[in-house]
Order: sequence, then structure tokens, then C-alpha cells
Amino acid sequence: MPDPTLASPTLDVVAIGNAIVDVIAAADDAFIAAEDLPKGSMRLIDEDAATGLYGRMGPGREVSGGSAANTVAGMATLGLAVGFIGQVADDALGQVFAHDIRAAGVRFDTTPRGEHPATARCLILVTPDAQRTMNTFLGASQYLPETALDRATIEAAAILYLEGYLWDPAEPRAAMRAAIGWARDAGRRVAFSLSDAFVIGRHRADFLSLIGDGLVDILFANEAEITSLVELENFEAAVAEVSRQVPLLVVTRGPAGAIAMRAGERFEVAAEPIDRVVDTTGAGDLFAAGFLAGQAQGRTVEASLHMGAVAAAEVISHYGARPEADLKALVAARLG
Amino acid sequence: MPDPTLASPTLDVVAIGNAIVDVIAAADDAFIAAEDLPKGSMRLIDEDAATGLYGRMGPGREVSGGSAANTVAGMATLGLAVGFIGQVADDALGQVFAHDIRAAGVRFDTTPRGEHPATARCLILVTPDAQRTMNTFLGASQYLPETALDRATIEAAAILYLEGYLWDPAEPRAAMRAAIGWARDAGRRVAFSLSDAFVIGRHRADFLSLIGDGLVDILFANEAEITSLVELENFEAAVAEVSRQVPLLVVTRGPAGAIAMRAGERFEVAAEPIDRVVDTTGAGDLFAAGFLAGQAQGRTVEASLHMGAVAAAEVISHYGARPEADLKALVAARLG
Repeated sequence: MPDPTLASPTLDVVAIGNAIVDVIAAADDAFIAAEDLPKGSMRLIDEDAATGLYGRMGPGREVSGGSAANTVAGMATLGLAVGFIGQVADDALGQVFAHDIRAAGVRFDTTPRGEHPATARCLILVTPDAQRTMNTFLGASQYLPETALDRATIEAAAILYLEGYLWDPAEPRAAMRAAIGWARDAGRRVAFSLSDAFVIGRHRADFLSLIGDGLVDILFANEAEITSLVELENFEAAVAEVSRQVPLLVVTRGPAGAIAMRAGERFEVAAEPIDRVVDTTGAGDLFAAGFLAGQAQGRTVEASLHMGAVAAAEVISHYGARPEADLKALVAARLG
Repeated sequence: MPDPTLASPTLDVVAIGNAIVDVIAAADDAFIAAEDLPKGSMRLIDEDAATGLYGRMGPGREVSGGSAANTVAGMATLGLAVGFIGQVADDALGQVFAHDIRAAGVRFDTTPRGEHPATARCLILVTPDAQRTMNTFLGASQYLPETALDRATIEAAAILYLEGYLWDPAEPRAAMRAAIGWARDAGRRVAFSLSDAFVIGRHRADFLSLIGDGLVDILFANEAEITSLVELENFEAAVAEVSRQVPLLVVTRGPAGAIAMRAGERFEVAAEPIDRVVDTTGAGDLFAAGFLAGQAQGRTVEASLHMGAVAAAEVISHYGARPEADLKALVAARLG
């Protein structure tokens, strides 16, 4: 039971995630094949591998990223009060990350660690089909300690949002477990993104027990992730299975739109039409941003899905995983 | 007279310029006004001013820039053999600059200086009208010494290309003067970009004497620059005056296209139509890239102007001052 002495939330959402700067470069399919990369997915690499791949890839553009960080940046643009917790190093990319997320209107107070390891970077290769293949050097990000979390901030947010990507390293995993406990004790909701099918492969039991223990109120997944989670090849069967265990399930389906399941009720939204898909990086992150913003604003599940679709459409129309256009205006034009 | 023992050029163009990483952010007119910035121009700022402005501006994207560097990157994309000389520091942004220009196919061998001052950065504010207002911290770039120039490389290039922006600091100015002498002695052509009306205000006498001494074979300017150079308000009068002093004059006119003057003959090209102008940063740099590529390929002045227009249109259709699309294919589609 929530402590009745706790005040109303002063933040809509606080997120814990990887603090990453993306390095985005165009690449052709031959390059992806030559590098033996699993196209469309995310893999973790060490600093040497990152240096090697960087040397072979094309000219880049550096844009702040990180899955949950992209989501809160999107929510801030939509007018929500949001915070982010993630570990950067005391280096140039760490300054870039901190500047960008604060400039987006997100509260960000995590103290930089030392200079080594360096701030996380994700080498993103975008193929002509707009698919992104991500190669992440976690660097400082994987050393987020529980002590970097301010319990009062977690308690102050209506929703705690966590990214599955950060479940890989032990220290932030422990920090996220603590945060879930604080949030639940304060009567807050917990939202979780499954992030990536390969991450699920490494942590399926953990994720299933979080869900089974009733610790996740809103679960975000895509088709590959939802089927991987319960190891069911059939999409509908997987959705049915998972939706029995979480109050609110949101599954994005790329060009096929998205669905939500709540208490056995199913909601659907089509993808927003756009002229040209340039780079799908951040599509899921921004869908989550729009959906959570809708929820925080007290909108219906259907309207929240529409907001997710609008935000995702914006971010895939350009390089980079954070919105460039005025999402608030786009949503107003679409939904009023 | 060229030394008859000199070999044929092995490079089409070698450029000397600022080695800069651009930090591009959207801004509204109110922000430009509040910061008291001369909209559409470039100003030099020190590190403190850069830090202050960075703290107040919006989320950025870091993309390698530098006027002449953008030009050679564009020429490399068009299939030319090009080199670049410019000074970076031994820091993260210096690595980004070096990676990006090499990955674009440009020969770049300038040894990084120490860690301080840092690699140059240009804080670029892009307003909704797609105009860019540039605030440059020159950092390491202003310490390019003559000793960083390899005389054999200068002599090996058919064209030496110089940016007026780099005329401000004394050390690279001296280096560029030396390079001009080596290029002339080797019978190479010298191309020069006037860069910016304010730069001309600071160095008008120098620029006029370079031109008057017959040291510039191809001169690039825009409307503001050509009128500033000879202090004539009337555009046609300024063009007539300057074109008497340079073998080949190219003047870009934004949406009105561009003209070239050679031996009293006038050539014109319209701007290439594009759907939406996003960010005019690099328009002049890429116009020069297309034009010089055409010249290096032995095309007519008219065809070279068309190549300039195609390259400029591509770069203003997205954020960042280096091409993202396949310029060679765009030129082939336009000119064959």
C-alpha cells in the first residue's frame, strides 16, 4: 500500500537508462555483411571493437541517444515533466549527452564518473532500407551505481520507466531493481521496455519473473521481443500470453502500426503515413514517448496509441533518434 | 614559369582550411535576437563564449564541418582525388574530424596538436527560415603552422583551394601564403573562397592585393561578399569590377542561382528546385565542390555551374554541411 504521507507526483516520468551518444553513418548491405553484423539488432562491443568498426565505417553524425533517454526527451518535447538517470564519463561525449538532454527539457543530475571508461557510444549503421544496426560500447553507462539514484526523485514521478538494454550490466541492473521497489512502495507505476530480442535471450527468466511478480504495470515490446519473451512463434499467442500478466501491454509492429492490450481489451493503431523512412532508429523509443505522454495526460489508450504513432513517424523521417520537429504541434494537428 | 621537371598532378585539389566540428541546433528568431547575433553570418568567439552559448542553445548534432573541408568532402564524393590540410587538437572532436574526412575519401595527414586549445567547433543555430548563424571557436585550427604543410602535396595537386575564413589567424595565413607561392611555382591553379562579408571587412586590402597580384585563378563569392570586396553597392558593378581581375569568377546568389565570369563572358545557372530547404549551412561550400569537380573533369563552365547547383541543393535539404546522398548519381541524373 502506498504511504499516505507521500505527496502527489511532481514528475510525470523518471527514466533509468543507458546514457549514450549515437554515431550514425550510412552503410550499404555489403558492409553489414562484410562486418558480419546481425542487421536490425543491437550488439554490445568492447572499446577495441568500437575503435575498429569506427575506423572502417563512413562519416558519422553524433547525436545524443540511449533508448530511455530518447523516450524522455520525446516526452519533454510533448510538454511533460520528466527526469533521466544514467551514467556518463567526465569527457567530451559526456558533456554532449548532458547538454542535449537538459536542453531538451529533461531533468538530469547524475554526476559524471571519471574519465575511464569513456561515455557510451553506439555506432549505428543505417542501410538504404532505413534499418539500423547498432553496435554499442557501454563504457561508463554500465557502471551506474544504486547510489546515483535519488530515492526522492523516483518517488516523485508518477511513472518509473526502465529500458531492458540496461539489464545487461550488473550494477545498473541492481540499481533498477532498487528503483522498482521504491516506486512500488510509493504507489507509482512501473513501465518497462523489453528493448531487444537478444537482450531478452540473455535475461528471459529475470524479465518473466519481474512481470510474474506484478512489478511491471506497462510493458513495451515489438513483435520480435514479445514472441521471444514467451518463446512462442505465433504473434497473437504471445500477445495473449503476456497480456494476461501485465495490466497494460503495448506492442509496436513497424509499418503495421501497434496494438495495446488492457484487461483483455484490444486496441489498435495504424502507422502514421510519412513520405520517406530515413532511419528507423528510435522508432520504438518515440512510440513509447507518445504513448506514455498520452497516459500521463489522462488520455484514452486509443489516443495514447495515436500519440505514439505520431511521435514514431516524426523520428523515422530523419537521421537520429530524438525528435526534430515540434511534436506537441504534430499531436495537436492529429488529435486536437 | 612552371618547372618542366615537375610531374603531372596526382591530386585534383588540395585544400587548406579550418578543421571544425559543427554543433547544429534549431533556434527561433527570438533566441538569435536575445543573443544579439548577426543572423546569417559567421562570428568568431572565444572558448568562454562558446561554453556559454552552448549551455543556452538547444540539443545539438555534431557533424564535421569547416568550409574548405566540406568542399573537398563533396569533391571526394564526386569521385575526385583530393586532400585536406587543417589543424585539429588531440581530443575527441579532433578524432571525429579526422575520421569523417578520411571516411569521406579525403587524404588528411595533418598531425594533431596537443590537447589545448581544443579542436575547433562551430555552434550553428538554424532558424525556421533555414538560415544559419555561425559562432566559431577556432581552437586548434588557428595554429596551423607552415611546417604542417607538405610542399610536395601542394605541388601534386592541380588546384590549391583556400578559404578566406582561415585568413583571420596569423599562423595559417602565413602558411597559406607559402602554399600559394609553391602552387604558383609548380604551375598549379589557385582557387580562393571569400567566405564571409565580415572576414572581408577585416582583410579587404590583403584579398585585393592577392587578386591584384594575379595569385588567384578562380574566385568564389556570394552577393554580400563580392559587393563588400570592392565596396560597391551595385551587384553588377561589383561583378564587373572583380571579374576584370580574376580569370574565373563564380558568384552564388542563393535561390537566384549563380553566375560565372570568364574573360568577359557571362554564364548563369538557376538554383536546383528542391522540396524543402532545411539548413543552408554548406550551400556555398558544396557549390564550390560541384563547380571545381566539373572544372577538374574538364567540363564547360556552364556544366560546372550545374554541378555546383546540384551539390548545393543536396546539402541544403538536410541538416549538416556535408553531402548525405550520392552526389555522383545526382549529377549523372542531371547532366549525364
